[in-house]
Amino acid sequence: MPKPFELGDWVLLVPTDPEKQQRWIAKVGEKFSTAEGVFDLGSLVGKMPGATVESHLGQKLFAFRPTPADWVLHAVKRQTQVTYPKEMGYILVRAGVVPGSIVVESGSGSGASTLMFAFAVGDEGHVFSYERRPEFSELAQLNVERAGLSHRVTFKVRDIADGFDEREADVVFLDVREPWLYMRQAMEALSDGGTLVVLVPTTNQVSETLRAMQTQPLVDIEVCELLLRHYKPNPERLRPEDRMVAHTAFLIFARKIAR
Amino acid sequence: MPKPFELGDWVLLVPTDPEKQQRWIAKVGEKFSTAEGVFDLGSLVGKMPGATVESHLGQKLFAFRPTPADWVLHAVKRQTQVTYPKEMGYILVRAGVVPGSIVVESGSGSGASTLMFAFAVGDEGHVFSYERRPEFSELAQLNVERAGLSHRVTFKVRDIADGFDEREADVVFLDVREPWLYMRQAMEALSDGGTLVVLVPTTNQVSETLRAMQTQPLVDIEVCELLLRHYKPNPERLRPEDRMVAHTAFLIFARKIAR
Amino acid sequence: MPKPFELGDWVLLVPTDPEKQQRWIAKVGEKFSTAEGVFDLGSLVGKMPGATVESHLGQKLFAFRPTPADWVLHAVKRQTQVTYPKEMGYILVRAGVVPGSIVVESGSGSGASTLMFAFAVGDEGHVFSYERRPEFSELAQLNVERAGLSHRVTFKVRDIADGFDEREADVVFLDVREPWLYMRQAMEALSDGGTLVVLVPTTNQVSETLRAMQTQPLVDIEVCELLLRHYKPNPERLRPEDRMVAHTAFLIFARKIAR
Amino acid sequence: MPKPFELGDWVLLVPTDPEKQQRWIAKVGEKFSTAEGVFDLGSLVGKMPGATVESHLGQKLFAFRPTPADWVLHAVKRQTQVTYPKEMGYILVRAGVVPGSIVVESGSGSGASTLMFAFAVGDEGHVFSYERRPEFSELAQLNVERAGLSHRVTFKVRDIADGFDEREADVVFLDVREPWLYMRQAMEALSDGGTLVVLVPTTNQVSETLRAMQTQPLVDIEVCELLLRHYKPNPERLRPEDRMVAHTAFLIFARKIAR
Repeated sequence: MPKPFELGDWVLLVPTDPEKQQRWIAKVGEKFSTAEGVFDLGSLVGKMPGATVESHLGQKLFAFRPTPADWVLHAVKRQTQVTYPKEMGYILVRAGVVPGSIVVESGSGSGASTLMFAFAVGDEGHVFSYERRPEFSELAQLNVERAGLSHRVTFKVRDIADGFDEREADVVFLDVREPWLYMRQAMEALSDGGTLVVLVPTTNQVSETLRAMQTQPLVDIEVCELLLRHYKPNPERLRPEDRMVAHTAFLIFARKIAR
Repeated sequence: MPKPFELGDWVLLVPTDPEKQQRWIAKVGEKFSTAEGVFDLGSLVGKMPGATVESHLGQKLFAFRPTPADWVLHAVKRQTQVTYPKEMGYILVRAGVVPGSIVVESGSGSGASTLMFAFAVGDEGHVFSYERRPEFSELAQLNVERAGLSHRVTFKVRDIADGFDEREADVVFLDVREPWLYMRQAMEALSDGGTLVVLVPTTNQVSETLRAMQTQPLVDIEVCELLLRHYKPNPERLRPEDRMVAHTAFLIFARKIAR
Repeated sequence: MPKPFELGDWVLLVPTDPEKQQRWIAKVGEKFSTAEGVFDLGSLVGKMPGATVESHLGQKLFAFRPTPADWVLHAVKRQTQVTYPKEMGYILVRAGVVPGSIVVESGSGSGASTLMFAFAVGDEGHVFSYERRPEFSELAQLNVERAGLSHRVTFKVRDIADGFDEREADVVFLDVREPWLYMRQAMEALSDGGTLVVLVPTTNQVSETLRAMQTQPLVDIEVCELLLRHYKPNPERLRPEDRMVAHTAFLIFARKIAR
Repeated sequence: MPKPFELGDWVLLVPTDPEKQQRWIAKVGEKFSTAEGVFDLGSLVGKMPGATVESHLGQKLFAFRPTPADWVLHAVKRQTQVTYPKEMGYILVRAGVVPGSIVVESGSGSGASTLMFAFAVGDEGHVFSYERRPEFSELAQLNVERAGLSHRVTFKVRDIADGFDEREADVVFLDVREPWLYMRQAMEALSDGGTLVVLVPTTNQVSETLRAMQTQPLVDIEVCELLLRHYKPNPERLRPEDRMVAHTAFLIFARKIAR
């Protein structure tokens, strides 16, 4: 149910010119500057999403509440490769991340996948996010905090070679360079019947991960990739965009069976 | 948090032979038959997901709790084209269907998208699903009921030319043959700042929908398609599958602005 | 320049029903049978391509002269995986197989790539096609002979571990299981400045081939794959076909430099 | 058969650093400048393709003979959208452009497709290339002349609404904005049994062309698109490139039957 903007709410800002691809996430109450002037985002207080805000130069931006994809694409401060919404959406429905789910992930990276999981598990679920490098864990925490979802996530700074603390996760998600080194740890954290999800960018990593999976009680293995192709939204000259993202990562899914 | 199977729970059954692609959804307590014999699913009571069940011929199947994708791919009784998990996953994260969201959709079809939305909105959210043909509405209700999510969905048998009852939906989803005829009705149901999602299979329908959208207070229009490509999970001979689904549908997203 | 059909010419037969996907290649003068009756192909003598031939049941087929793609898709008797027209077309223009070119290939397989090269090099060029297994070499010869291109191809039954006889090929094409074992032999056959083309189905083979290439005087290395997506040719309901070929092979191109 | 470079030959210049994507086509005998210095291409006289040429700063470039794809990608002076090698390769094998073929095309554009056809038809075949705008016809002539293929092409400056002069083309290729306006003219130029090929970038143009084709004696209609996906050639970290060309054009093929 929509509510008017309040001070401190986050907004997605969208140019009124449909040709402009850039979007920003900012906070109601801040002064926000682009090449088109300074926008007083305090003027949004009490307005409904979909309202406009005007710069001192008379330029306008639309203001919306950010969706999970907006957070990941436009708000997450990045110091790592970011998982794309297309992969995350498929992971949610394929692995079954729903309100109430317990998800264990590593690494936290910049918090993009953490955020996606935190949105999906709701207040009844929980995400445990492990990261070896303190500076990344802090970045991920910051990004999750900005989306107001900190209460759904527990961050831990740890090398997962030392194992996860959890034992009954519905889903374990590995987005690390050498996932094959942590199969035992992942299996310990995963509940019987739960789904292991691995994300890796290269075919060599896929092969290595599949080899490691063969020694574990894992079945129903799926390897896949997702391609998202945009079209120019011109009804009289409909055609795909000239260029697209050709590759983000390969996804590997497997279900844990009882030994 | 995983629990042992109880009488009446639904299970996903997976062959132990990784070459076999078929999966089934059945009920704990039933007798279930395949070419490999009769499986007494009552034997699963008290066992954890990931357990096996054996036929009278000594063949085995793995038993899991179905994820949203499993429900749609293996359980939904189909009399209509089914929305695929890849599209639904992207819709969830792109349009922002999260615990607590209000979603209005038409048509109900066989209930595949209804189910996906019902999983995502949680007990705090709600799905209103409109369908003109009573027999499809009943089928969709049956499919949602089997997944135990009836309390999250209100089904209405109505021609949406007569309008939706809701006025503050976070997301309106149109999966009908001529979505351009119902733009006014969709806009009335959608809250300011909310996202309209249209799914159509042909390029002509995309063009017609975009034309109709141009007369509405809609911005940030995105037209796209998703391709899911599977790989044979053989670490020593990794390669894509020989064939794939080349097309399900085009997706159109747009955000409603304040008039 | 088109000529009327003569006795012994090969024809491509196309159903008059556009829904029917099957095509056949047969010989003018033969009796040809399908489920729709017996067609006396002798009746085509003196007719121009594009004519119809009628069965004793009154059903019709269109008769055309086969193009290179028709030969490969509809005529080549297969006992091996067949290279697809999309890959071959790209190889021709990318590696520069033009009238007058000298091409060395292995294996002959069923002669599909041999045929494509033979069409492209014209009467001034030549194809040398090596194959270890006599029965495949014979099959390839038969397929090339049917297309009337035997004079442009020299077949050799040999394990290419023993080397190629040629030394100045414009293009060397390897379509064998372990191309990395024959890098030295391929390089000896290739002229300075010539292009080596390798076709392999798995990512492991791509990696292994790239490793072997690194020790050779090869530059400008390109690894790629081609996807061909068909659309239903309905102007009012234009959309991609439901399914497509997801993978044939990966292609690797490299140019030989002077040592 | 390879020959040493002579004065006036065209060379493809390739950086020695495999990370550098740029390539150039220049003439033996010229001085050629890049950021890495001035290269005296006269020093290539008498050397074989695959040789290097050194700048006054000691930097090197490899010198090859350009293939058809090289001409189109790196040499054709562009003032129009260019047809890509992947489309042209498929057109050659699918429509049957082989040594001896007669091809009629419009428009000449910058001569990219003209060049590809001219390479494939050999000295026995011929290409007739129509263009309404004199400045483009001149550009196309220049590009074909540079590749030494002028004797295989006849350029005509004409609005094809006035018809083609030829009557027995094996292949007619239309790469114009409104191909549906010229169906009658194309059919007159095409021999019975010949193939009409249309290239258009938008789905609306595909629909319009298909509608126009329905009134003509055309069968075996194929609508398709080709996607070329490159991989980073690193054997230990094999993966697709991050971005790719998502769309060049749709291709439509049809065969002419006898009325």
